[in-house]
Amino acid sequence: MASTFGKLFSVTTWGESHGPAVGAVLDGCPAGLPLCEEDIQKFLDRRRPGQGKTTTARDEKDKVRILSGVFEGKTTGTPISFVVFNEDQHSNDYADIAKWYRPGHADLCYDQKYGFRDYRGGGRSSARETIGRVAAGAVAQLLLKQLAGTEFIAWVDSIGEIECPAVEADKISREAIEASPVRCPDTAASAQMEAAVLAAKSAGDSIGGTVRLVVKNVPATLGEPVFDRLDALLAQAMLSIPACKGFEVGSGFAGTRMHGSKHNDEIFFDGKAYHTRTNNAGGIVGGISNGENILCRMAFKPTATISQRQKTASRDGENGELAAKGRHDPCVAVRAPVIVESMAALVLADLYLQQLRNKIIL
Amino acid sequence: MASTFGKLFSVTTWGESHGPAVGAVLDGCPAGLPLCEEDIQKFLDRRRPGQGKTTTARDEKDKVRILSGVFEGKTTGTPISFVVFNEDQHSNDYADIAKWYRPGHADLCYDQKYGFRDYRGGGRSSARETIGRVAAGAVAQLLLKQLAGTEFIAWVDSIGEIECPAVEADKISREAIEASPVRCPDTAASAQMEAAVLAAKSAGDSIGGTVRLVVKNVPATLGEPVFDRLDALLAQAMLSIPACKGFEVGSGFAGTRMHGSKHNDEIFFDGKAYHTRTNNAGGIVGGISNGENILCRMAFKPTATISQRQKTASRDGENGELAAKGRHDPCVAVRAPVIVESMAALVLADLYLQQLRNKIIL
Amino acid sequence: MASTFGKLFSVTTWGESHGPAVGAVLDGCPAGLPLCEEDIQKFLDRRRPGQGKTTTARDEKDKVRILSGVFEGKTTGTPISFVVFNEDQHSNDYADIAKWYRPGHADLCYDQKYGFRDYRGGGRSSARETIGRVAAGAVAQLLLKQLAGTEFIAWVDSIGEIECPAVEADKISREAIEASPVRCPDTAASAQMEAAVLAAKSAGDSIGGTVRLVVKNVPATLGEPVFDRLDALLAQAMLSIPACKGFEVGSGFAGTRMHGSKHNDEIFFDGKAYHTRTNNAGGIVGGISNGENILCRMAFKPTATISQRQKTASRDGENGELAAKGRHDPCVAVRAPVIVESMAALVLADLYLQQLRNKIIL
Amino acid sequence: MASTFGKLFSVTTWGESHGPAVGAVLDGCPAGLPLCEEDIQKFLDRRRPGQGKTTTARDEKDKVRILSGVFEGKTTGTPISFVVFNEDQHSNDYADIAKWYRPGHADLCYDQKYGFRDYRGGGRSSARETIGRVAAGAVAQLLLKQLAGTEFIAWVDSIGEIECPAVEADKISREAIEASPVRCPDTAASAQMEAAVLAAKSAGDSIGGTVRLVVKNVPATLGEPVFDRLDALLAQAMLSIPACKGFEVGSGFAGTRMHGSKHNDEIFFDGKAYHTRTNNAGGIVGGISNGENILCRMAFKPTATISQRQKTASRDGENGELAAKGRHDPCVAVRAPVIVESMAALVLADLYLQQLRNKIIL
Repeated sequence: MASTFGKLFSVTTWGESHGPAVGAVLDGCPAGLPLCEEDIQKFLDRRRPGQGKTTTARDEKDKVRILSGVFEGKTTGTPISFVVFNEDQHSNDYADIAKWYRPGHADLCYDQKYGFRDYRGGGRSSARETIGRVAAGAVAQLLLKQLAGTEFIAWVDSIGEIECPAVEADKISREAIEASPVRCPDTAASAQMEAAVLAAKSAGDSIGGTVRLVVKNVPATLGEPVFDRLDALLAQAMLSIPACKGFEVGSGFAGTRMHGSKHNDEIFFDGKAYHTRTNNAGGIVGGISNGENILCRMAFKPTATISQRQKTASRDGENGELAAKGRHDPCVAVRAPVIVESMAALVLADLYLQQLRNKIIL
Repeated sequence: MASTFGKLFSVTTWGESHGPAVGAVLDGCPAGLPLCEEDIQKFLDRRRPGQGKTTTARDEKDKVRILSGVFEGKTTGTPISFVVFNEDQHSNDYADIAKWYRPGHADLCYDQKYGFRDYRGGGRSSARETIGRVAAGAVAQLLLKQLAGTEFIAWVDSIGEIECPAVEADKISREAIEASPVRCPDTAASAQMEAAVLAAKSAGDSIGGTVRLVVKNVPATLGEPVFDRLDALLAQAMLSIPACKGFEVGSGFAGTRMHGSKHNDEIFFDGKAYHTRTNNAGGIVGGISNGENILCRMAFKPTATISQRQKTASRDGENGELAAKGRHDPCVAVRAPVIVESMAALVLADLYLQQLRNKIIL
Repeated sequence: MASTFGKLFSVTTWGESHGPAVGAVLDGCPAGLPLCEEDIQKFLDRRRPGQGKTTTARDEKDKVRILSGVFEGKTTGTPISFVVFNEDQHSNDYADIAKWYRPGHADLCYDQKYGFRDYRGGGRSSARETIGRVAAGAVAQLLLKQLAGTEFIAWVDSIGEIECPAVEADKISREAIEASPVRCPDTAASAQMEAAVLAAKSAGDSIGGTVRLVVKNVPATLGEPVFDRLDALLAQAMLSIPACKGFEVGSGFAGTRMHGSKHNDEIFFDGKAYHTRTNNAGGIVGGISNGENILCRMAFKPTATISQRQKTASRDGENGELAAKGRHDPCVAVRAPVIVESMAALVLADLYLQQLRNKIIL
Repeated sequence: MASTFGKLFSVTTWGESHGPAVGAVLDGCPAGLPLCEEDIQKFLDRRRPGQGKTTTARDEKDKVRILSGVFEGKTTGTPISFVVFNEDQHSNDYADIAKWYRPGHADLCYDQKYGFRDYRGGGRSSARETIGRVAAGAVAQLLLKQLAGTEFIAWVDSIGEIECPAVEADKISREAIEASPVRCPDTAASAQMEAAVLAAKSAGDSIGGTVRLVVKNVPATLGEPVFDRLDALLAQAMLSIPACKGFEVGSGFAGTRMHGSKHNDEIFFDGKAYHTRTNNAGGIVGGISNGENILCRMAFKPTATISQRQKTASRDGENGELAAKGRHDPCVAVRAPVIVESMAALVLADLYLQQLRNKIIL
């Protein structure tokens, strides 16, 4: 069940970049959640390419249909099936890659693993697979919004060497992020990042970046010790996104340079609830949410597909060169935020439902 | 099944720091693997405290017993049950923490989650829970060694600001690592790290660190798209270790500063197999092992328990101060390597067995 | 993941009787299996209504589309997505049942469980949900046929009081079964059964029946002790079919009247393999296939929907009467054989893939 | 995870008949349930042999220890580990069976499956494996008793040709059942059954039987469509018990002889809740509990081990004869009731916890 994620609120994605359609089945969503196709479409529209100079030129409409699980505008508790038909395939652009393994791509690994693959594109490792995740993640976001007022906000924190200055969680808005062509809420950094992406693009190259996520209004108690700790599942969720190579929560790698006396977050009771003065934990202690904001950062490598010529080998064992045609994002990080939010929401929705079983006796 | 990890080769751990015992059940190990208690003990001995000045003074024997699944020195294919009785509990050392929530610890989160907890110690969030993982991980290491010659080597790469110089995977040995009191194979860095740990200890403080892992002789083809990508499961596995706050594979966060033309690993065929000239991918592309060494780095925060006084709140909502008694590791990273190896081996063994189903037709 | 079945070869079904479509996602099928839509359609055509006087008058084309996982006529190892659009919905036939709970139907249970349901029909409890199972089961049958020559044959063994005489497994053919309007291979019994079904139909009533399954050329070794015993999973699979109320394997309930000296199947070695002289075990001992034919029998209750008036209660707590309109099978057992085969094939395919991990060392 | 059962309330059993111990780990029990070893022991005492003339002469104390998950007399929400050490092994009784495959036993299947087995006894297919199930099932019974007043009562309904007269669910008590040496609440039938068992025993033979289960005070809404229907999971649970060959719910096989107009249970509203006049459904409609009593019947084949000589084959392919030594139950059905209750309780507890997620919005 490698294409299924989650235990109670579980999504199964299917589809390849060059097949007739991609989609997902979401099982376990509680009944009664208001839901229509437009609710999902808003999230998909943030994911799709063709949005500007910094992303790929493919203009895919990515219109979602809901085929089951919703009746009279509300979820019924039964599986919700999403489908998006692939409209703009241009498979002839990809002729060369049937022969040559693209460096940095999974072509070789898929051939070794399965002995066979759809050589017209990335197939299952394509970013199009994430459409199903975003559709299901949209439901997760709506569910948690309704149940707990939870909000997910992700943005581009760096591209290449250019970093976004520190942002206060309370001041950041999804609107400011989406207004930036590189999804960075800091205007100055955004301009520099855009230049860096365009420079890479015009050089037939690509560039890496990082994405930050903050989750606000998280109920305490989410996360199941020991293997399904909240941070462990977030890490799996993030690393399962194509091109993601790193994850950290709270102080992360920087925190390893600190002493415990400084790193431990002081706990206090404000008369109503427990809080911490600092948030080095990133909202998760012992694998369980403590009610503070969840803070994560993810690393995305530079897009593997570039139009510069590269040395590589062929399916027949020939060593040679390949120059990719086709259209690609010069910086995958730019399209990642909505995928990051979606995966985080899938994790939290699942753990929210799992937590209902605790404290039913006390 | 939050205490169960793996689909075909699956471990279930149980036990708390102050209960009568801890252990694990390993289900799905193929029959015929030579196995005895001493095989497991060697790995547990690397995990246990009481090994030197840089770790805690608790001297736990941690003698493992195998209660099922082995007959005449070989695994039978049925569940293998491991148990380690807790001998040295000293629960009176922990009296204060029944009242005060220890900053940086899961005390508060457990109380919020379950409405009730074993207040004598970390309970399920204690590092003692990892005994079961190391026992099962030892079997995973032995299995992969026998099937594919796979080797797992983890070491301390930094403590505080002190970093181990870059190490060539081929030159690093488990012996050199274990010879260092801080499990750092570089003699000079090891001495500096030891000093840093002892300084923290004498200040009643703790310090963070990072651990590197290299896995050699990894068969290509391991990893199941899309959610059970090899790197995604490694990330979950690592973040599930107490105190781990970050994970990166291959170029990781540093790779986000690179361009694709530089980051993509050139593929070549050497007449027998495909290889890459560089290994920015860290041995994993598209979530599938490519046969190169797997390279990961993990962040461990400073130990939460320190003997300095800290501000915190009580179960009754009182704000006050706590100074921990008891014995603790000033730097958890020092004991982490064998746990890191174990978790990685559990992931790879499971994916190895899963991969057997592919290519049975072709 | 209640809509997902199987661990390595796993199917997820979705869709309701009155929604736009039904379908399934099959994850974990090995790469390289020849597969096209027509292969699936043959099985679906055996499932669909509109085939004769003894089944419902709905004429649904049930044309299947494969949306992913197949390339150039072969499976790729990635998820296979099936969809069948609902063409003949006639939802106005079902107006009354929005108010009155149909006796024998799940209407009341769904309302109690979810607090809300699609009141136009059986929704998720409709037999249309089994379309996804049959599509995925068709792949399972083709896979096992190719790997081991395994064959699945199910037929109607009784309707009401009329029983099919004992049939030798080697002499029964799918053709003879499908030639019968009630899917009973014995010509005389078939005629009597048909009369019984038509009598029930003309009385506005329905009637129960049993289905037998034989699986031939089953490899020994399939079944995972202890909870995933082959017979335990077959029992779950069969009872998950709508209207199934009983399952027995081998001697079943009749065997409880026997003594062990008679019931035990004598084992002998014929120079090449082990066999048993009798097959009271039904091909499964200790939950593991022994290589003999698998023999099962399933009970199907009479169709719940009948056109006679019945007393029942309404959503508002009113007690009254309901007479169903619409079209229904007077005997669900008649359409069950292909569903029974499909579910059995899903179980065996999954266990076949799981078994690959054993004996890799010896 | 074939030794793990349940999704939220999940038990993992381990251990063989002739190993040092058997046990189980129960993960997912809500915190706060009062629990001590004596609570579990009461159930285990009903399972163990040595209770009378009609069961085996082995006198195993089967003293259970709880090694984790309980603190100050209450569950903590963390995994509960049970262990029972094997005291009375007499492995020398079983010398012959190292060579000859016992007819009706899993010896041959285990050898074929794993290529290797513990030849001293039934190993993992031994009834001793059910100790772990009964321990975990005891917790499930206690949990459901506390949450919903649910009660599980199972008894022997037939042995050989002798049947217990119909019993009204409300009049049957566990005390009356346990007072019978064959666990049949009808005094006359009990005496006849006892004679039949003793006759089989003195003939060196064994005999089959059936067990009935009634579950009272079952909350409506339990069961997850479509594969995790309550009846489907009960069927899996029951068929996973050694020697079980059949399962039926409600009208079962007898119901296939009925017409729908008679079989459908009339629904009525009594001013407070919905009920049915009859209970052909056995308390489960569409896979979901409707609040009526759950009614099931299970078939247990005659004990495979008998002391009469039987023809069989050896590991080396020799055809010959075997007469079992050792001690065995002449009728496994007699010890089955507590195991049946336990498995049913595990199913219901898991589904109870899963159901908490529905209706959280409405």
